[in-house]
Amino acid sequence: MSETKKLNGVFSPVITPFLADLSPDTNRMVRHCQWLVDQDVGLAIFGTNSEANSLSVGEKINLFDALIEAGIPVERMMPGTGCCALSDSVELTRKVVQGGAKGVLMLPPFYYKGVSEDGLFASYSEIIQRVGDDRLRIYLYHIPQVSQVPISLGLIERLLKAFPNTIAGIKDSSGDWNNTKAMLDLYQPQGFDVFAGSESFLLANMRAGGAGCITATGNVNPSPIVNLYKTWQASDADVQQVNLDMIRNTFAKFPMIPALKAAVAHWAKDGQYATVRPPLVALTHSDADELIGALKALNFAMPGI
Amino acid sequence: MSETKKLNGVFSPVITPFLADLSPDTNRMVRHCQWLVDQDVGLAIFGTNSEANSLSVGEKINLFDALIEAGIPVERMMPGTGCCALSDSVELTRKVVQGGAKGVLMLPPFYYKGVSEDGLFASYSEIIQRVGDDRLRIYLYHIPQVSQVPISLGLIERLLKAFPNTIAGIKDSSGDWNNTKAMLDLYQPQGFDVFAGSESFLLANMRAGGAGCITATGNVNPSPIVNLYKTWQASDADVQQVNLDMIRNTFAKFPMIPALKAAVAHWAKDGQYATVRPPLVALTHSDADELIGALKALNFAMPGI
Repeated sequence: MSETKKLNGVFSPVITPFLADLSPDTNRMVRHCQWLVDQDVGLAIFGTNSEANSLSVGEKINLFDALIEAGIPVERMMPGTGCCALSDSVELTRKVVQGGAKGVLMLPPFYYKGVSEDGLFASYSEIIQRVGDDRLRIYLYHIPQVSQVPISLGLIERLLKAFPNTIAGIKDSSGDWNNTKAMLDLYQPQGFDVFAGSESFLLANMRAGGAGCITATGNVNPSPIVNLYKTWQASDADVQQVNLDMIRNTFAKFPMIPALKAAVAHWAKDGQYATVRPPLVALTHSDADELIGALKALNFAMPGI
Repeated sequence: MSETKKLNGVFSPVITPFLADLSPDTNRMVRHCQWLVDQDVGLAIFGTNSEANSLSVGEKINLFDALIEAGIPVERMMPGTGCCALSDSVELTRKVVQGGAKGVLMLPPFYYKGVSEDGLFASYSEIIQRVGDDRLRIYLYHIPQVSQVPISLGLIERLLKAFPNTIAGIKDSSGDWNNTKAMLDLYQPQGFDVFAGSESFLLANMRAGGAGCITATGNVNPSPIVNLYKTWQASDADVQQVNLDMIRNTFAKFPMIPALKAAVAHWAKDGQYATVRPPLVALTHSDADELIGALKALNFAMPGI
């Protein structure tokens, strides 16, 4: 295993703001990234909650370039680069690795269902060989309820054996702690870093030797999540976890991406943040009001946004 | 409704041949398209069985241009143009419509699951407005077992009302005849053309007023399928249907796309056709032998390929 696996802590799949014409809004994205970095949250740009699969590869490359140009630190990024098409995954991965990203979060190709472990192994293998860059570090992305294409333990085992310097870890968004625990027990000792897919499992993951979490609600509740990451051995860790859960569960009563954007729009006093791309739909005004009201009742705020 | 809805008959999602380096093989694709056209099969290029979602938009555009340049008739094409990303769907759809395609087969965006009817309506609506071409004719693509994003009757109703000249029909690949029948009863009388998703339902679809079928096995068994389409009112139609089913069911014992490619490779005496892109895997030699043997036992052949 390579000793250069440095990404850990709390990452957030950064929301992608859109202009009124639904084009990606680089200025607002830069602003949001800066706010997150200032609070020690890493930037899992182009994740599920970034609406990344509603963006073309060209749009993602343009956004990446714009963030770098604006001074957002590439060392804090873990861009999502797994697409349906082999050629798209290769192009986007190569771009961000050459641009300095220390790791990428890679979905399996997700259109065809019921594909074999051999086929998924071949997919990752072809991408790794075609990118052909020793600096590439891949974090696998297991989110079966959305991708419908799971990353099995057997696949991890084969990939780690074939590409020990490249396969760096996983984000487990299954919500199945037994699965996360199996990964921690089997592969974390080999330096394969396991990130929980949300802060709901952050404390459990840290206690079991995990690397942190990559979480949608990092977009809105960064400091408290980072605090638990940093103080998970403190005596109030369980209380912190309960408080994080209350905030997350409030968001989870609504479709997550529109809810995140509604909260950012409210606390940034900038309604444009609420825009989503189809097939998603923004929260209705009444749903947004209900969300904001429920969050305020929990003394939630987004200071400095 | 527009009176220019002309696409009907038997279409096939044309297999996409690949070279050894997994790049799209335009020469073999031209040859295969020509063989299909010669047997009166329309070209649903870039369909599910074309591995279209394993190709980038750029690769699809290059293939489209190459087919046109080689003299493959664009009037016989119904390219698949629905991608995950709004921007990709717009780019590809615009390209093929400007290139002369009389219809496109359009998947809904398929990464995000559980999306609302409002969101899917917004997706199709944005694409139609952004393509902005009166010649656009959309065939919706309902294949819930793969896309996991169904096209509901309610969505069809709303789209037909909003875009009566653009929404031309549907391919129903659900395999649920009750669903196909509901579409035929409700919308075919308005000129909304219902294509069965395979020849298994071709006779039933024609008897109920449908427009034909769009079928994977059109790649390998074109003439017999076209014959049933043309003679569905003949006395031997039920016997023809049984014979078609036997061939299809033989292919369906294996993963469909690798099996189609194995059969083309065998009868064209050109092993290169068997290559698939990850995440798919070619049939093993023994599976290919079993398939070919079973087909020969049914007196199956691919004359002229």
